[in-house]
Amino acid sequence: MEIFVYRKGAKEIDESFSPENLPELLADKENLVWVDMEQPTDEDNRILADVFHFHPLTIEDAVETRNHPKVESYNGYLFFIVHGVTMETHSKNFITRELDGYLGENFVVTYHHESFRSINGVKNQVRTNTFVCGRGTDYLLHQILDQLVDLYIPVVDDFDKTISDIEDRIFQMEKGSNKILLEIMDLKRSAGRLIRISSKQLDVISRMSHGEFPLIREPILPFYRDVYDHLHRVSVLAENYRDLVGGLLNIHFNVVANRTNDVVKILTIFSAIVLPLSLIAGIYGMNFENMPELKTRYGYFLTLGLMVLVAIALLFYFWRKGWIFQGDEEED
Amino acid sequence: MEIFVYRKGAKEIDESFSPENLPELLADKENLVWVDMEQPTDEDNRILADVFHFHPLTIEDAVETRNHPKVESYNGYLFFIVHGVTMETHSKNFITRELDGYLGENFVVTYHHESFRSINGVKNQVRTNTFVCGRGTDYLLHQILDQLVDLYIPVVDDFDKTISDIEDRIFQMEKGSNKILLEIMDLKRSAGRLIRISSKQLDVISRMSHGEFPLIREPILPFYRDVYDHLHRVSVLAENYRDLVGGLLNIHFNVVANRTNDVVKILTIFSAIVLPLSLIAGIYGMNFENMPELKTRYGYFLTLGLMVLVAIALLFYFWRKGWIFQGDEEED
Amino acid sequence: MEIFVYRKGAKEIDESFSPENLPELLADKENLVWVDMEQPTDEDNRILADVFHFHPLTIEDAVETRNHPKVESYNGYLFFIVHGVTMETHSKNFITRELDGYLGENFVVTYHHESFRSINGVKNQVRTNTFVCGRGTDYLLHQILDQLVDLYIPVVDDFDKTISDIEDRIFQMEKGSNKILLEIMDLKRSAGRLIRISSKQLDVISRMSHGEFPLIREPILPFYRDVYDHLHRVSVLAENYRDLVGGLLNIHFNVVANRTNDVVKILTIFSAIVLPLSLIAGIYGMNFENMPELKTRYGYFLTLGLMVLVAIALLFYFWRKGWIFQGDEEED
Amino acid sequence: MEIFVYRKGAKEIDESFSPENLPELLADKENLVWVDMEQPTDEDNRILADVFHFHPLTIEDAVETRNHPKVESYNGYLFFIVHGVTMETHSKNFITRELDGYLGENFVVTYHHESFRSINGVKNQVRTNTFVCGRGTDYLLHQILDQLVDLYIPVVDDFDKTISDIEDRIFQMEKGSNKILLEIMDLKRSAGRLIRISSKQLDVISRMSHGEFPLIREPILPFYRDVYDHLHRVSVLAENYRDLVGGLLNIHFNVVANRTNDVVKILTIFSAIVLPLSLIAGIYGMNFENMPELKTRYGYFLTLGLMVLVAIALLFYFWRKGWIFQGDEEED
Amino acid sequence: MEIFVYRKGAKEIDESFSPENLPELLADKENLVWVDMEQPTDEDNRILADVFHFHPLTIEDAVETRNHPKVESYNGYLFFIVHGVTMETHSKNFITRELDGYLGENFVVTYHHESFRSINGVKNQVRTNTFVCGRGTDYLLHQILDQLVDLYIPVVDDFDKTISDIEDRIFQMEKGSNKILLEIMDLKRSAGRLIRISSKQLDVISRMSHGEFPLIREPILPFYRDVYDHLHRVSVLAENYRDLVGGLLNIHFNVVANRTNDVVKILTIFSAIVLPLSLIAGIYGMNFENMPELKTRYGYFLTLGLMVLVAIALLFYFWRKGWIFQGDEEED
Repeated sequence: MEIFVYRKGAKEIDESFSPENLPELLADKENLVWVDMEQPTDEDNRILADVFHFHPLTIEDAVETRNHPKVESYNGYLFFIVHGVTMETHSKNFITRELDGYLGENFVVTYHHESFRSINGVKNQVRTNTFVCGRGTDYLLHQILDQLVDLYIPVVDDFDKTISDIEDRIFQMEKGSNKILLEIMDLKRSAGRLIRISSKQLDVISRMSHGEFPLIREPILPFYRDVYDHLHRVSVLAENYRDLVGGLLNIHFNVVANRTNDVVKILTIFSAIVLPLSLIAGIYGMNFENMPELKTRYGYFLTLGLMVLVAIALLFYFWRKGWIFQGDEEED
Repeated sequence: MEIFVYRKGAKEIDESFSPENLPELLADKENLVWVDMEQPTDEDNRILADVFHFHPLTIEDAVETRNHPKVESYNGYLFFIVHGVTMETHSKNFITRELDGYLGENFVVTYHHESFRSINGVKNQVRTNTFVCGRGTDYLLHQILDQLVDLYIPVVDDFDKTISDIEDRIFQMEKGSNKILLEIMDLKRSAGRLIRISSKQLDVISRMSHGEFPLIREPILPFYRDVYDHLHRVSVLAENYRDLVGGLLNIHFNVVANRTNDVVKILTIFSAIVLPLSLIAGIYGMNFENMPELKTRYGYFLTLGLMVLVAIALLFYFWRKGWIFQGDEEED
Repeated sequence: MEIFVYRKGAKEIDESFSPENLPELLADKENLVWVDMEQPTDEDNRILADVFHFHPLTIEDAVETRNHPKVESYNGYLFFIVHGVTMETHSKNFITRELDGYLGENFVVTYHHESFRSINGVKNQVRTNTFVCGRGTDYLLHQILDQLVDLYIPVVDDFDKTISDIEDRIFQMEKGSNKILLEIMDLKRSAGRLIRISSKQLDVISRMSHGEFPLIREPILPFYRDVYDHLHRVSVLAENYRDLVGGLLNIHFNVVANRTNDVVKILTIFSAIVLPLSLIAGIYGMNFENMPELKTRYGYFLTLGLMVLVAIALLFYFWRKGWIFQGDEEED
Repeated sequence: MEIFVYRKGAKEIDESFSPENLPELLADKENLVWVDMEQPTDEDNRILADVFHFHPLTIEDAVETRNHPKVESYNGYLFFIVHGVTMETHSKNFITRELDGYLGENFVVTYHHESFRSINGVKNQVRTNTFVCGRGTDYLLHQILDQLVDLYIPVVDDFDKTISDIEDRIFQMEKGSNKILLEIMDLKRSAGRLIRISSKQLDVISRMSHGEFPLIREPILPFYRDVYDHLHRVSVLAENYRDLVGGLLNIHFNVVANRTNDVVKILTIFSAIVLPLSLIAGIYGMNFENMPELKTRYGYFLTLGLMVLVAIALLFYFWRKGWIFQGDEEED
Repeated sequence: MEIFVYRKGAKEIDESFSPENLPELLADKENLVWVDMEQPTDEDNRILADVFHFHPLTIEDAVETRNHPKVESYNGYLFFIVHGVTMETHSKNFITRELDGYLGENFVVTYHHESFRSINGVKNQVRTNTFVCGRGTDYLLHQILDQLVDLYIPVVDDFDKTISDIEDRIFQMEKGSNKILLEIMDLKRSAGRLIRISSKQLDVISRMSHGEFPLIREPILPFYRDVYDHLHRVSVLAENYRDLVGGLLNIHFNVVANRTNDVVKILTIFSAIVLPLSLIAGIYGMNFENMPELKTRYGYFLTLGLMVLVAIALLFYFWRKGWIFQGDEEED
């Protein structure tokens, strides 16, 4: 648990307080207190209940990690749950992390089981500069949400790369089509999840930015609206990507259909060329006594020549149809 | 019919009362009375009408078991229908069970044709501890709904397992594709049903948690909101699973298409290799008198050699195309 | 036209009045008058206009039979159109029948071109028992709507049977696939129609049950809500069936795809077994002078043996792939 | 430009006025003036601006013909755009025509570039009978809209015929499948267009019929509601047809799939019957010296008999599978 | 930065002012000031902050170029973002350009990084004619938006051409099907993007045209409604095109399916004709000693004749089935 205290008019943040000081710090409305609980202990949970007197259900929600984004107004404070996203380094999936928190008139509490880049960013900001704290708890919370939402953007950018990567591989590969299909489905699911997550988050931030909660004051609302706009952009991008993935599926099935087509073409070409020649050979393999051609001097060679002619004629026919020798590579 | 009576300030629940005592128990507002009717008899139904004076349509609804979740406000009490779910042990389907009930200022009536794990759970709770009853009928009802909704979670978890089970089998099986398809369709239907059931239930609990009914008092509302959040999570998971099942269908049809492709490939490989060799044999089976090769000493062996060469060349061609000898197992 | 008159406090319905009595009957507010017009004549239409003074547009609507359900409030009366459904005995389609009617303070008029089982049912009810009429015109109308909606249930139950019937036939049939497809499409359309019809009807009954019309009094509203619940159940069932039909389509196309697969398999098995054997025969049909095998004593028999061996090897290969001898029936 | 003037209480319409009289005619509130501008001239446009003083944007809208239906309230008049539909005689497409107009307290202006059957119908009506004009401008406008909407019905009826026509052709045709597909797509588009057009029009008429505009008086509203009902029916029918067209697509693709299936069946039957016989012939064409059968007297005939037997056995096999001789016509 | 100043009653626009004059120009409410910032410099941004005192978040939005359309009301001015579209000359894609701006009581600021044809158009207009400026800032802004929206129309018209172009190519091409598919997907995406962009823009303009902002005065609202109608038309057209593209996909897959069908037909025709002839040849190639036909004088020629007859019979059969010689071109 880290405690940041800013006293109105002070030049610096005071980080020297310990949890025991919290009651008196909170009692003085001239203080702005930010309590960040990372990997919170039972002791931390007790402080939420005994010092801050938060509603037990909100503490339960904070302790659990399977919650959806929400914001709830209680007597004297707001409770909120928002989600941050990060790409897992070793896979193509992104994971979401839950950030719970409370906003009061002179305090902000952030509560999270994992480290948040956005929160660390804001910590550095308030250490170097009192500007953020000087504008009040609602502005401080906006700062945290703003950085959290900005970290959504690399995730959607990553989609872009993955989609063109898969598109390339669809056209190159002859086998492994199921593997690509599974990846496409994964991607579709990821995009769907991102849309759902941001849609809930949009609800939360939209309510925060429309003046529903007096704890977020009128002149600070445009900043929340700004966060809303950024998140909205992310959500629109995610919808675009989901459409793109739907297109990938069509292309994939088209490639599969074309492949069957190609296989059948090869079969047809082979059969259509060889079978007539075999027939010719079969005819001159008959054992009739009276087959004048058999006795001619060049019958055999003429027959071979006939075969070559028939083969060329058929090859020409398939070439005219565009089945052979015509940019076969281009097609796949 | 079991009757639980808690008298304000008492240390224990009194379970000694019989139905005849109900009128006087209900008349005294200091009592909290919970009447649980499991597998109700005609006698029970008569009590609903004659002792509680509930609206006859609600009693009709309670007796039937084909109702959808709802909550209705009557003079002095609420009537509600909610659904619990359980997995059938012998199949992959879940079944829903109807719980009807009434909430009054100093009574809760629960009415159900089958045993409910959640109700038994709450019974044990009130027997060991008067805390729940001490907070009023609305809190007692919340407790029942909370446990009921928590039992939805194993059902959605089960989906997860079934889906990855089917996914594995799609890739392994060569036959039985219709059976898998039927299972996928079943799963889709189950997910759809779960979504529909929870959506109605969400309506009911949402109305209960928004202060629409004065019988559920202001400070108890957050607890209903909590039940709402839990159920909402279940419903979002069910939607996710429905999307996953949609993906399974795509994969299934892809596997079927690939299988046809494979069959045609085998046909093509066989034909394309054997037919040219047969042609060679056919040529030297012709009966022309003047066929110089036939008289050469090693003609036959050279011809056999030629056949082997042609076969190898074609095998090489198909290997280059990736149709043979290249991780055939990997593909399916 | 049949006229049922119930005088407040009477023990029996009086059916002895003729149209000429209507003006005086209606003038006396102690009377409840139910006028049922089945296969109405021009005379009946004139009574609507001249005795009841209904709005000409509503009379026009009643005379026509292509209307959608609706309810409209006029000065002193309600005009409503609802639809009943019945299964046609000779086909699998259901047909809808239009019931038009008026509800006034002391009269109900029902107007329909065809016979309604629900209306006949209510007639019997009011003849044997004055209870229904004693509760007022709004309760009488509720009774009619209730019976009308209950007759929707056999129609949806019929869907159930038709769907499993078609499912069986999909798997059995080798031909006639277009016929089944047409039936599936028909079913889908029927389910769609039923959903649309009940959705409009739900609107109508919802408005009736929410206190919008003072002619339907407060204590009678729960009965209309009950009709609403029943119809809602029908509509949810119809949606379920539509989903099931969507699944049938998938199964159908899967069966078609599998069938092509099976045909190609048979072709492949035949070709792959016979062609290599033909090649062997072709080789020993060549006319080279120096073919040592030809002169050996058992060459012919060894060759035949070789052919049998090759055939067995290939059969074994296809058996391993699961294409032959492995529960072929199970697959389809 | 035609001018119809009805003076309150008059027995006949007066068509003798010219544009110059308009200002005085309009000034007298006892007159009802209907100005119909068909293929309007610049002079007509000038009258709209200078005599009626309509807002220049509405005149711009009237002059253009690419507008969507709308209704707008201005000071003292309504401006509306509605669409009529007609079937083109030489194609299966319907076209829409734009009707612009103004409704004032004592005038109706209709403005259209093409002839409208509905407007001509109303003209005849007002010439033969002053009833319509006697009820006011709002009733006159209702009359025009009513006739306009009634002309939608032949268009949807036409869909019905086209759909069953295409359905028949799908099953009959062996070739031309792309042509049918294009027609199906056209039909789908037409149905979609009709739905969109009527949906906007429904908005317009719904607003007119809900008392939003005081120029349409209370007792006339039911007549607009009636127009709304008629148009709504058209729109529901169009939705039905769009669903039907979706079904056609499924049937079409099923027919295409079945056709491929049939082609492959023929190939399989031919190959599976001829190849084994060829093998037998090939075996007895081998040149082994010791082939006892060759020397027997009836070997050749027995072999031919064997071939016939094999052929019959295979034909029987395919007949059992239902591929041949079994109501082939019925299938397609 | 260009500054246009119109002084009430003046005959001409005054373009001679420099940024330093802005404070005094703005202070005098008799002036209308239009500041256009194309490819804005840091100096320009400073003017927004220091002279106009716009909210810093709006300036941030203006500087960035990844924003969605919006309109926000601040104290004394509106901030808006709208998008213009243009076709890229070298590709079939359209690109969007962001136009940010401010509307005040006596000023309009337009801010854009790229050149806008619509803005240049309005500049010429105000230079030649003071009519636009004379009607106030809201009318001036309407003029800009109107021209911006009119430039959407060439983009949708372009869709029309591209779609019929692709439709033609689908039917002509034998190969390259993936390339066409990619183009179809591109088009679908473009249509989707256009729908999304116009839908946001519609929101913005709808809010502007409904009297929400007092800066846009009552008599000017119809002009904004007119812009709304134009944009709405574009958006409906784009939806139509998206449907058309969906149809293209169906046609494409149908063409692919037909092509496979054609390939298989050719294979079937070749096999079905050649295989039986080969069988005949094979039979007379058998080496039985007693084969009476072999010794007949014309056996060979009769056999050849038989082959021709069989071939003709089979060709006739396939011609009857419509597979050959029947408008083959027409089909594809």
